[in-house]
Amino acid sequence: MTRFFVTPEELQPNFIVLTGENAQHAKVLRLKNGEEVLVCDGQGQECLCAVSDVSQGQISLVVKSRRESESEAPVKVSVYMAFPKADKLEHVIQKATELGAYEIVAFPSARCVSKPDEKSIKKKLERWQKIAASAAEQSGRGRIPEVLVLDSYREALSRAAQADKALMFYENEQATTLRMAMEQGSAATISLLTGPEGGLEEKEVDMAREKGLQVCTLGKRILRCETAPLCALSAVMYACGEF
Amino acid sequence: MTRFFVTPEELQPNFIVLTGENAQHAKVLRLKNGEEVLVCDGQGQECLCAVSDVSQGQISLVVKSRRESESEAPVKVSVYMAFPKADKLEHVIQKATELGAYEIVAFPSARCVSKPDEKSIKKKLERWQKIAASAAEQSGRGRIPEVLVLDSYREALSRAAQADKALMFYENEQATTLRMAMEQGSAATISLLTGPEGGLEEKEVDMAREKGLQVCTLGKRILRCETAPLCALSAVMYACGEF
Repeated sequence: MTRFFVTPEELQPNFIVLTGENAQHAKVLRLKNGEEVLVCDGQGQECLCAVSDVSQGQISLVVKSRRESESEAPVKVSVYMAFPKADKLEHVIQKATELGAYEIVAFPSARCVSKPDEKSIKKKLERWQKIAASAAEQSGRGRIPEVLVLDSYREALSRAAQADKALMFYENEQATTLRMAMEQGSAATISLLTGPEGGLEEKEVDMAREKGLQVCTLGKRILRCETAPLCALSAVMYACGEF
Repeated sequence: MTRFFVTPEELQPNFIVLTGENAQHAKVLRLKNGEEVLVCDGQGQECLCAVSDVSQGQISLVVKSRRESESEAPVKVSVYMAFPKADKLEHVIQKATELGAYEIVAFPSARCVSKPDEKSIKKKLERWQKIAASAAEQSGRGRIPEVLVLDSYREALSRAAQADKALMFYENEQATTLRMAMEQGSAATISLLTGPEGGLEEKEVDMAREKGLQVCTLGKRILRCETAPLCALSAVMYACGEF
């Protein structure tokens, strides 16, 4: 079923009107009166609606039922990724959204080659948020993950550490596996933190330990910086019983 | 440590000579006498060597020890992927290699938009095999996964079904999770089969069941055709105790 995202204020109890890009999209799909669509507020609430009127730039819908989205994972997994080069962050935003991430947080670390400057960050964030919205729509999610940018590595650690389970992946860690970390009790919120192309520095890993993050391995093969967060997220979703 | 791939015949017990692209690569790295490198046969055997002579187009090595590669998973996971559009197959080959796939098998299915013709397939296979080799080197693998192309969907099913555990992922399956399938006894060989952009047809799924494949879900979110195999592979490697 086609899925439209509106703001929480637009998700009205009886009637909903689609405008702007949503109306354009509906026009492309040639929606007809009576057809059913899903309208989501991007925060986990959705309404099953029937088209009641199609006019220029505006589609009117009658709400048939309202429910909590069924495609959101009960566990909230935040993906923390050190700024990678070029379009790798966009790739991770798209894929992490499909895989059910709650939010995606980018931050600088010592070996980051690419750090967007303050001027360009606003525009980039808009673009990144659009990528997340589009991936959420395509994958049938009820929630659009928020994309956040933090100013410092320290801030990333403090924020990540607030989760019930805060994990960092480091290629030189050998003793603690992700499985060990996952089997230490359940968690409603999980942070997964990975480094940039050049990896994390040892002192950055020590800092993370001090802040309370658990340092784990993703196995004996070295994963690229864009592969590691998606591998970890897939495994965590599996471990949490999502599939 | 730098890793070079040679043919199994070149992996000699006492002395090894690097030539061609390997020698060029060694030159770029400015390897010096006494430096240690790893030489792998791409099939899981590797030798720890010391550089004994550097000359034009040729690097001579003394073998210090020979061992089985430590970075290969004991479980052999084959990734079967219906031909996707454009460069998505290349993406999956690179990532599946990093994630430890034993081999990657591409095949046609009813809704494939892109099927390379016989004339171009040989050149493409060469390119795909190079992508696998390069990803194997970067991720520190001891084995280069073989990339195979099959002529028909039927052939893919027959080949995939030979594994101890043969799984197909289908977005309309709701009852059987990957976890259920994984918990039905251990397996030394596992096949993971996924569809193209438009998905698999219901009759194709029925055919797979008849051939003995188990049809599973990867959760409530619809994954793109290039995301599904990598998500499944990550989860399977986790389930098999790789990390």
